[in-house]
Amino acid sequence: MRAVAALARRSVRAGSGRFLVEGPQGVRELVRYAAPSVVDLYVTAAAAQRYAALVESASAAGVFVHSVSDEVLAAMADAETPQGMLAVAQQPEPTLADVLAASPRLLVFLQEVRDPGNLGTVIRAADASGADAVLVTDSSVDVFSPKVVRSTAGSLFHLPVVTGLDAEATLAEVASHGIRTLATEGEAALTLPHVDLAGRHCWVLGTEAQGLPDHLAAACAERVSIPIYGKAESLNLAMAATICLYASAAAQHGTQ
Amino acid sequence: MRAVAALARRSVRAGSGRFLVEGPQGVRELVRYAAPSVVDLYVTAAAAQRYAALVESASAAGVFVHSVSDEVLAAMADAETPQGMLAVAQQPEPTLADVLAASPRLLVFLQEVRDPGNLGTVIRAADASGADAVLVTDSSVDVFSPKVVRSTAGSLFHLPVVTGLDAEATLAEVASHGIRTLATEGEAALTLPHVDLAGRHCWVLGTEAQGLPDHLAAACAERVSIPIYGKAESLNLAMAATICLYASAAAQHGTQ
Repeated sequence: MRAVAALARRSVRAGSGRFLVEGPQGVRELVRYAAPSVVDLYVTAAAAQRYAALVESASAAGVFVHSVSDEVLAAMADAETPQGMLAVAQQPEPTLADVLAASPRLLVFLQEVRDPGNLGTVIRAADASGADAVLVTDSSVDVFSPKVVRSTAGSLFHLPVVTGLDAEATLAEVASHGIRTLATEGEAALTLPHVDLAGRHCWVLGTEAQGLPDHLAAACAERVSIPIYGKAESLNLAMAATICLYASAAAQHGTQ
Repeated sequence: MRAVAALARRSVRAGSGRFLVEGPQGVRELVRYAAPSVVDLYVTAAAAQRYAALVESASAAGVFVHSVSDEVLAAMADAETPQGMLAVAQQPEPTLADVLAASPRLLVFLQEVRDPGNLGTVIRAADASGADAVLVTDSSVDVFSPKVVRSTAGSLFHLPVVTGLDAEATLAEVASHGIRTLATEGEAALTLPHVDLAGRHCWVLGTEAQGLPDHLAAACAERVSIPIYGKAESLNLAMAATICLYASAAAQHGTQ
């Protein structure tokens, strides 16, 4: 029980290669897309009844399901309301080479995201927009922290999220595969509606506070700004990523 | 000092008609766009130095500036890091009639938003997309709660946010002014890229968990879904609003 609760700490996750997936929505997507990675599933009696089909499909997929009391589940969980269900799973470890070998059309690269909710939301937006992968540097918040996992709403299991990357090497590697790198920058003269997004490309976003450092923006093929039509000074990272990714999806999928 | 701190409570705000604006970004936009509504501005010595131009422009605008110690500021603030600055202001009270009298082209109406960060982000997205106003029902989280104010990043002072509205009456009133009401709904057959957004319209969004109740969706002129290109089940409220509002801005402003 303490070993499970300890997975809320980054060092423990890094040492064990395991992480927590809390609540029925995350567990459902985990079981559906990555059942072999599930180490244990803990369920309260009430949740076992309420989510019977989910628990059954987990068992059928070979997942080891444990019944626990409400108190034990609460002690294991990071979330205030884990809704009676929590899984321990092995962290997926997709590599940049795997992602690039699959001829991706749409990628998003986060140079240094610190806020867990922002990272989770970008992963969810990438999934919704049909992006092929999310790329994250080693100086970003841990993708497997409970708060990031929760805020992806299951999207973490829908597309590869490559972590621990070096920014400059990654931009060079992506570009060398014929993927156009597009730096988002508030001051750029080229605005989003003027960018041709039909081809293969990778959005590159900087930190919440400072944006992208100049040497990284300069290393990208284009610098692009999102127009501000009102009086707002800027958009937050998750909003900017969502707008860019949905513009890409519209261009790549046509008007579905 | 206690009277200021008490403004973190909804009942105290409702009784006094005042609210807290924390941090230099919010205070700057408050002073710039609504200086007459500022009751008091509290600044630490360090912040007075760091944000000297801002404090000077507040004084010049007739704002009553008080020097306080770090401890007093921390005791008054709701935020963990108010960055040495905090204002008490009168709540603006724009009405739906005012908004509609100004011939708005783009509105967003939130039927029941509960999460402060979501509401703040929608107000910020509305501002960035050039929307004319945000409309919020009486069953939503309080727009003047410190967390909502912070997450608007100053946008609360850039456009009218009308609160305490009744959902059905508001939809009828908006429609009667020739503004097309567009309900966002995950299941709608009509998708965002197929909607003509050049004319006057109002986006109508439901709760984070359940979406829009059927009787309200039915009361709108159209039901519209945002396409999901990947495996995500849905988008969160703030992402959905941002995507819809930016699609509207692109249609109304052309490719600026």
